[in-house]
Amino acid sequence: MEDKTVPNIVVGRLPLYLRTLQLMFQEGRRVTSSQELGERLGISAAQIRKDLSQFGEFGKQGTGYNIEFLANQLRQILHVERVWDMAVVGIGDVGHALARYQGFSNRGFRVVLLFDNDPKKVGTNVGGFVIQDLSALVAKIQEAKVLVAMLAVPVDQAQQVTDQLVQAGVRAILNYAPINITVPTGVRVQYIDPVLHLQRMTYYLE
Amino acid sequence: MEDKTVPNIVVGRLPLYLRTLQLMFQEGRRVTSSQELGERLGISAAQIRKDLSQFGEFGKQGTGYNIEFLANQLRQILHVERVWDMAVVGIGDVGHALARYQGFSNRGFRVVLLFDNDPKKVGTNVGGFVIQDLSALVAKIQEAKVLVAMLAVPVDQAQQVTDQLVQAGVRAILNYAPINITVPTGVRVQYIDPVLHLQRMTYYLE
Repeated sequence: MEDKTVPNIVVGRLPLYLRTLQLMFQEGRRVTSSQELGERLGISAAQIRKDLSQFGEFGKQGTGYNIEFLANQLRQILHVERVWDMAVVGIGDVGHALARYQGFSNRGFRVVLLFDNDPKKVGTNVGGFVIQDLSALVAKIQEAKVLVAMLAVPVDQAQQVTDQLVQAGVRAILNYAPINITVPTGVRVQYIDPVLHLQRMTYYLE
Repeated sequence: MEDKTVPNIVVGRLPLYLRTLQLMFQEGRRVTSSQELGERLGISAAQIRKDLSQFGEFGKQGTGYNIEFLANQLRQILHVERVWDMAVVGIGDVGHALARYQGFSNRGFRVVLLFDNDPKKVGTNVGGFVIQDLSALVAKIQEAKVLVAMLAVPVDQAQQVTDQLVQAGVRAILNYAPINITVPTGVRVQYIDPVLHLQRMTYYLE
């Protein structure tokens, strides 16, 4: 099923397809088409069919896609038919929001570990979990075998904490600190920086 | 200077270049090269030179780029030599973090209006601004001539609030609700959904 040679940009669209299928299913829908998916997403129907065809045959000509079946296939392809435990490092405003974020459930993720280096925060509870001291990060992450982390520390601590996450065995980091971090081969990084998105839009505004 | 035919993907890299130049300047650096920028960003030096050449001649062969000059040029291209006032709609955990986010300053943005429909939140202060009732959104945004908004409302309210933002004259929306929204031509939307980024990484994890 999985093909490591699928272009990264195609892989990046699969979560969008899955999210849209899940919303359709919640709306009570059971069948859809590449045309309808495309209209919801602003992507051409041909592109969607081409993307999905890289992984198999999911629909029948004329009858479209069974939403539940295609969603389950995409969950398997993206490895979110399971639930990934995650650590949040840095419990400022952003980390706090991530620790309590309701949008992870049913999408393959849950937060189980929280870390901060502020003695006033360590030992307090956020979203049902106790914030632990940053100095325990490597041991606790190894013990819990956590492979996914979200990084919400200040810019000047981002690389140092990243190195500790990698040392602890983390293989996927979602970085909210507005700085590029360096990781060894085999570790994935994705970035969330609202200003990058805002500046992409103001370019087009006078 | 500005060319509306520049591909969207090139425009999308300019904020990354600007962010990196600003960090270098804070580190006390005054001159850089496409090679060094490329190493920090994981982008080839040739790509960076090609991207920048679409907007003018910013460096001299052999002496590299003056960091402050290039950063100022990029600010002008991206229209962030000024400061854009922003509204945040939906002051849950995510909206709260956005209202207090320190990362906007010196990057062209500031939050000036907050809206929520929860009577318990309306009238309270977050990050120096009073949360106003959602029913006042169109009038207040028009009065303040705000063109940029961040949307952090629940999924089932996202489209309705978007329609109000558009009616009020907003032309750039950063949407944190995990659903695609529809806007008329001339209004830009960017999306932030951490799960999309996480699933892009778990695809590569076994």
